[in-house]
Amino acid sequence: MKRFYNFSAGPAILPESVLSEAQNEMMSYKNTGMSVMEMSHRSKDFEEIIEEAKNDIIHLMNIPSNYKVLFLQGGGSTQFAMVPMNLMKNKIADYIITGHWAEKAYEEAKIFGKANIIASSEDLNFDYIPDVSNLNISKDADYVYICENNTIYGTQYKKLPNTKGKILVSDQSSMFLSKVVDVNNYGLIFAGAQKNVGPAGTVIVIIREDLIGEPLPFTPTMLRYNVHAKASSLYNTPPTYGIYICGKVFKWLKEMGGISVIEKLNNEKSKILYDFLDNSKLFKGTVVKEDRSPMNVPFVTGDAALDKKFIEESDSLGFKNLKGHKTVGGMRASIYNACPKKAIEDLVSFMEKFEKENK
Amino acid sequence: MKRFYNFSAGPAILPESVLSEAQNEMMSYKNTGMSVMEMSHRSKDFEEIIEEAKNDIIHLMNIPSNYKVLFLQGGGSTQFAMVPMNLMKNKIADYIITGHWAEKAYEEAKIFGKANIIASSEDLNFDYIPDVSNLNISKDADYVYICENNTIYGTQYKKLPNTKGKILVSDQSSMFLSKVVDVNNYGLIFAGAQKNVGPAGTVIVIIREDLIGEPLPFTPTMLRYNVHAKASSLYNTPPTYGIYICGKVFKWLKEMGGISVIEKLNNEKSKILYDFLDNSKLFKGTVVKEDRSPMNVPFVTGDAALDKKFIEESDSLGFKNLKGHKTVGGMRASIYNACPKKAIEDLVSFMEKFEKENK
Repeated sequence: MKRFYNFSAGPAILPESVLSEAQNEMMSYKNTGMSVMEMSHRSKDFEEIIEEAKNDIIHLMNIPSNYKVLFLQGGGSTQFAMVPMNLMKNKIADYIITGHWAEKAYEEAKIFGKANIIASSEDLNFDYIPDVSNLNISKDADYVYICENNTIYGTQYKKLPNTKGKILVSDQSSMFLSKVVDVNNYGLIFAGAQKNVGPAGTVIVIIREDLIGEPLPFTPTMLRYNVHAKASSLYNTPPTYGIYICGKVFKWLKEMGGISVIEKLNNEKSKILYDFLDNSKLFKGTVVKEDRSPMNVPFVTGDAALDKKFIEESDSLGFKNLKGHKTVGGMRASIYNACPKKAIEDLVSFMEKFEKENK
Repeated sequence: MKRFYNFSAGPAILPESVLSEAQNEMMSYKNTGMSVMEMSHRSKDFEEIIEEAKNDIIHLMNIPSNYKVLFLQGGGSTQFAMVPMNLMKNKIADYIITGHWAEKAYEEAKIFGKANIIASSEDLNFDYIPDVSNLNISKDADYVYICENNTIYGTQYKKLPNTKGKILVSDQSSMFLSKVVDVNNYGLIFAGAQKNVGPAGTVIVIIREDLIGEPLPFTPTMLRYNVHAKASSLYNTPPTYGIYICGKVFKWLKEMGGISVIEKLNNEKSKILYDFLDNSKLFKGTVVKEDRSPMNVPFVTGDAALDKKFIEESDSLGFKNLKGHKTVGGMRASIYNACPKKAIEDLVSFMEKFEKENK
């Protein structure tokens, strides 16, 4: 069964060992005589799966005891609504716009209250992270919102905004568990699983307990953090199979040595590609150096026809999903936790060859 | 790899051939070199998967062209909110309460408008379906709501309510694709996948096009049918792996000969168990005969200690998840589409043996 190099931005590559384990357990999980898909979410076996997944993520991220970890549905897009519906007590929130997804979150918040843009990098097609050291934070802002890694544009915050005491909410979807973060700096972190953790359909929310309160009126039960927190993510049937796969990825990360080890590896991996881009005469990265994401690396040749040729040739050689997002053009290599170093080394070798052949 | 008989009410048994195919394709789907879990939802391969799934369900249910099929997230519980948020133009809706899930839907609707109970079987612990031939339908009701098969109580509507021209909304979660229904009788049908179709985390909505309009204010984008309909269920990343498994179940149903064949089989299967219950001196069904569900069969001995003994013994012999819901007590055999006839025959043999041994 030939596996290709998968540079998809999401849903994205998963560790081969995780898939292989899931394959072995498909017809019967641990002598239960059934697949995890067929298992009641109220069964002892599944309760163990979700409990272990929760404990492993707490361990991996060193999550303080005054935070709750929730496994929910609806993706990041549902969080765009849940965050304001649950946190907007004063109906004022500050948004920093660093790309498509931050913008979507901002647009959604406007349904429920006053959302302010306090910084933006839209002027240069989001190819940088704005200076966030001294922002004009709204006096009564319920929170400051960021998208910490921008999948489409390939930027990442290297320093968190100075929120001047306000709660920080971060969409970490495309950088989740890729580097050490201090959870204490956040009021709420969320991440769609489908980039760095598991299959689409599960979203992980880490929320400081004191922020779990009464939501705005007209908030559907399923969109209330307090309901899910009280029920330990088992208010209704959760996406059981997705949580099971996420749990396996957490175990894999623990076996790798934890987040500090994976962070080092991610930096090494992305450095190979960025170093090549910095020295190439044909390819160049699209992001200002200091804001580059170790997860998503967009690059171009500057010639749309050549980009197309590169994408076609690389695809035929087994480098899959390198086509860039339409708003940036060119190419993008998403090199998440599960992307092996060899995939990047081989990609760079091919890029060198392509460069020689297309001078 | 020993498989047990799984009578779980949901998440529930899936066809063995579906799981086996998914197992074979786990590391590489059709020479793509990747798992379906790792595949972009915008890729050609996934678009084929979701498109085929949609076409197969249209074919299986003979869904008229003025209906849309949506694959969404959040389970039935999110539909409890989406239905009123999207359909309650006059802010009035009529609910028929036949169990826990209809009640939850009713409670949720009250957040958004006036919900009326126009019939209920709560007086007898929901062991029957009320007479719905001449209901007191509210003059301006936006819809009449039913839960068509009641998983916990084991009842099923044999005749749809006379809605006197109002739109009928039906939660078909635990009977979806188990019998022939005329979609024209409904304005909206929804079903959580985890009972009869696939893994938890996918919910299927079939909605008449003219009902897809502007929802109530404060409706989150992700809870708007118009958004998902316009984007053909690809507004955001859908639960890709779940949809893939649902698609395989649809193919399996087609190969079985379609819904009329599976309906016949389901009736044969449940008859074996009901006939035994009707003749047993020890066990008895808890539901009035004419409203019995072919999907969920609750039964009791009338002696809690004996129930417990039966559950323990049956479990040790590989009849899994026969424990009844706490509100009914005793036992419940959920015998969905994928439950083989032999499972029921063997269960009845064991029940006969148990009865002899425990006179």
